[in-house]
Amino acid sequence: MSSGPRTYRLGEIVARLGGELIGDQDPEIRRIATLESAGPGDLSFVSNPKYLKHLTGTRASAVILARGQRGATRLPAIVCDDPYAYYARAAQLLNPEPQAAPGIHAQAVVEAGAEVASSAAVGPFCHVARGARIGERVVLGPGCAVGEEAQIGEDSRLGPSVTVYARSVVGKRAVIHAGAVIGADGFGIAPQGGRWIKIPQTGRVVIGDDVEVGANTTIDRGALDDTVIEDGVKLDNQIQIAHNVRVGAHTAIAAFAGIAGSARIGSHCAIGGAARIMGHIEIADGVTVTATSFVTKSIRSAGTYSSVLPAEPAQEWAKTVAQLRGLERLTGRVRELEGRPKPGKRKGKR
Amino acid sequence: MSSGPRTYRLGEIVARLGGELIGDQDPEIRRIATLESAGPGDLSFVSNPKYLKHLTGTRASAVILARGQRGATRLPAIVCDDPYAYYARAAQLLNPEPQAAPGIHAQAVVEAGAEVASSAAVGPFCHVARGARIGERVVLGPGCAVGEEAQIGEDSRLGPSVTVYARSVVGKRAVIHAGAVIGADGFGIAPQGGRWIKIPQTGRVVIGDDVEVGANTTIDRGALDDTVIEDGVKLDNQIQIAHNVRVGAHTAIAAFAGIAGSARIGSHCAIGGAARIMGHIEIADGVTVTATSFVTKSIRSAGTYSSVLPAEPAQEWAKTVAQLRGLERLTGRVRELEGRPKPGKRKGKR
Amino acid sequence: MSSGPRTYRLGEIVARLGGELIGDQDPEIRRIATLESAGPGDLSFVSNPKYLKHLTGTRASAVILARGQRGATRLPAIVCDDPYAYYARAAQLLNPEPQAAPGIHAQAVVEAGAEVASSAAVGPFCHVARGARIGERVVLGPGCAVGEEAQIGEDSRLGPSVTVYARSVVGKRAVIHAGAVIGADGFGIAPQGGRWIKIPQTGRVVIGDDVEVGANTTIDRGALDDTVIEDGVKLDNQIQIAHNVRVGAHTAIAAFAGIAGSARIGSHCAIGGAARIMGHIEIADGVTVTATSFVTKSIRSAGTYSSVLPAEPAQEWAKTVAQLRGLERLTGRVRELEGRPKPGKRKGKR
Repeated sequence: MSSGPRTYRLGEIVARLGGELIGDQDPEIRRIATLESAGPGDLSFVSNPKYLKHLTGTRASAVILARGQRGATRLPAIVCDDPYAYYARAAQLLNPEPQAAPGIHAQAVVEAGAEVASSAAVGPFCHVARGARIGERVVLGPGCAVGEEAQIGEDSRLGPSVTVYARSVVGKRAVIHAGAVIGADGFGIAPQGGRWIKIPQTGRVVIGDDVEVGANTTIDRGALDDTVIEDGVKLDNQIQIAHNVRVGAHTAIAAFAGIAGSARIGSHCAIGGAARIMGHIEIADGVTVTATSFVTKSIRSAGTYSSVLPAEPAQEWAKTVAQLRGLERLTGRVRELEGRPKPGKRKGKR
Repeated sequence: MSSGPRTYRLGEIVARLGGELIGDQDPEIRRIATLESAGPGDLSFVSNPKYLKHLTGTRASAVILARGQRGATRLPAIVCDDPYAYYARAAQLLNPEPQAAPGIHAQAVVEAGAEVASSAAVGPFCHVARGARIGERVVLGPGCAVGEEAQIGEDSRLGPSVTVYARSVVGKRAVIHAGAVIGADGFGIAPQGGRWIKIPQTGRVVIGDDVEVGANTTIDRGALDDTVIEDGVKLDNQIQIAHNVRVGAHTAIAAFAGIAGSARIGSHCAIGGAARIMGHIEIADGVTVTATSFVTKSIRSAGTYSSVLPAEPAQEWAKTVAQLRGLERLTGRVRELEGRPKPGKRKGKR
Repeated sequence: MSSGPRTYRLGEIVARLGGELIGDQDPEIRRIATLESAGPGDLSFVSNPKYLKHLTGTRASAVILARGQRGATRLPAIVCDDPYAYYARAAQLLNPEPQAAPGIHAQAVVEAGAEVASSAAVGPFCHVARGARIGERVVLGPGCAVGEEAQIGEDSRLGPSVTVYARSVVGKRAVIHAGAVIGADGFGIAPQGGRWIKIPQTGRVVIGDDVEVGANTTIDRGALDDTVIEDGVKLDNQIQIAHNVRVGAHTAIAAFAGIAGSARIGSHCAIGGAARIMGHIEIADGVTVTATSFVTKSIRSAGTYSSVLPAEPAQEWAKTVAQLRGLERLTGRVRELEGRPKPGKRKGKR
């Protein structure tokens, strides 16, 4: 690996990324930092008005602000439509991905019949099986396993110990973090006579372009047809995507979310952490599911869906649960008060 | 690896797997496919009557049907008791496990005093520690670690980067997917003076025959006695089995389920995805726990148990949560309406 | 690896660990065992009075008892303040960590510019990148990856296939189990024009001393500032710690718990299995969160917090959920009974 952080004059950043420069264009910017931790050479940003108060006293050399905040500081400022997105772009500029030296490490094993592009970097202890294809500028971290006839698209980067099972397809510019497992068998079992028969999982995983897969996330291969992750999907750590799921383009899914078999998630959805999606259902485009919620049936229209139970002091919560269990009885009591006793219910019982 | 899919005449499949053949026995079958995606050479199946409608228009060469559906198509058909189980068997026939070439890869490390059967295949970058025993026809994928005195039974197959810690025992015909960890320390800590003392975990993990373990699933070793997974258990991805748990034979557990320490799960249970089982409790044979439910006390009889909260539109859900928090007050109001004011409660307050 | 279990006379154990010895000091103790599974040579313990009944009939050679239980057996006994902590200490004495032979395995790759202490043991298939520092007596299991400029403090032990990304800092005496991933990118994405822009994650993970990290647990690096795990924290398996989280000293967190971005957990907390902590909130010192609960807002004072829903037979549970959904209507009916119809609500409707 080489390269690493670069520095830019503030004016150079604006020349590359746009926005309006207010004040001195000369400050040399070395990194991005929060208002509170910034020092000289740092570019900071205000993406939420509640942090405007930290502008006073920041030691940043410059600040990214929304248009409506243009007068909020005397520091050199970049004024733009969306300071958070601008911060992301500026951080990419200042922190280019390290370039790995191309080549196959002497302690990697590439089987005959695998194709590895000459600009790709295959790390030590990687195994690339027969028929696999590794695209241009792909980086495989140490200890990755790429199965037979699997494909990794150009400019994709795999962290250490990533497994891509046979025939899986990963698109271009993927970022896959350590320990992720792409294309393990789906959980296909058929009951017979009190035992389980394993159902061979003969579909694939097909991942589009510009997808990120978090550490230790698992995406299972399809039973018959494929499991599909469309372009631009972002997956956090420790997510489970079961067989034959389809995740629509540009959907983001947070850690621990689980998508059960054959569910179809729309495009531009946001699935919160530890949310669960039942199998064989469909979720429309543009749906938000809040963290920890469990979607048990199809959702036909965009919007936010939830079944969050917020924690309370345990003694209060215990009372709530007790009340919940008594709800049917309470309803009966209200019915009696209304003079409409339930058929067969003995009056006076509670 | 070699081999891969095979082809059979339809009549050959029936000769091997049973069932009643209706129509032409000659079609050559190359694979299984769903009714909708099938083409010539494909065998399809109807395991759920709601998919019977897809029979019209399928391009499959033949179909597996239940006895009651025998007249549902003019295509060649296999009629049987359980089309889903038949599909599983036929898929196994058509997709035999690839045979790995026996031997220890030149880039594997097998320590002195380990026993590796001559028919076993140890992949590159595997480490087999002193005293470990690898049975006949076992396949270790790339990058597996098998600890001291661990045992892997014959015909078992481990995916890439599987860890089997020291003294763990894996039975015959296991399938263990990438990233699974067998026999890491249980979470044993004792509080003393505001700090935690680590309790050495000296038990083992003992896994029976015909067990499947999903990708990135973890099964901890026992504190003193063993953690036990009985024969025929099927575990999906990213499951956590804590120390000293016992899972009964032929129980199936879906992804993300967590079984806390010393819980005992019966045989022939079905534990849904992301279900949680409290520690130190017992669950009877034949229990089904629905996905995401939390079992907090022992279950003494077979049946289905649940604490699922289905997601709703967030605004409606927020009202429900507010109502839930007001339940105790509502009960008080009903009590007052009934003329039974709670002692000490001031009348008229609500 | 060498060493393994040792044996001690009962009197030697008391000489080293304290406590009051009652009866024969000569029994040779080989291991710790539960009262029920113990045999000759075993030391057992009673940490919970409900197990006192098992004292009758145990075959243990000696027993650890609380002061109040001193007359409970005729077996040789160690009487102490806290039998569970004593058990932990005795188990450590009897089961010293195996000593790995120092040195870098011939099949490990240590890049130029990495520093590996001469007493450290680097296993086969490990990759130690440029600028990384591996402390005295550190043990790296097979297949670990330690990134550029990462640091592993003295006496730390990493299991197989652990990833420590670039610049991460691990303190002294850490125990990190197989498949854990330290320092992968946090889930930082900014929306722009219907797509997601990746935000470079330039902070680090900084882990204090005496921390344990369970198998397949993931701890993400900070976006700008660091993610911090303080001294003495104990993390179980398959936990997710998001970017910029801080976990206070001596807090213990059980399996599957998830801590969202920028949350701050106090010291001496106990977070139950599969509990979830919302991002950007603070939890005071000494807080207990029960298993599966979801903390959605800051907790300012010590105590126990919960949102546990215990599973019930599914038919009963279905009624409860139906009642829950009808709660708003029920409240309206009570309001009408009280003679206070809701504005705009038609009388008589239910």
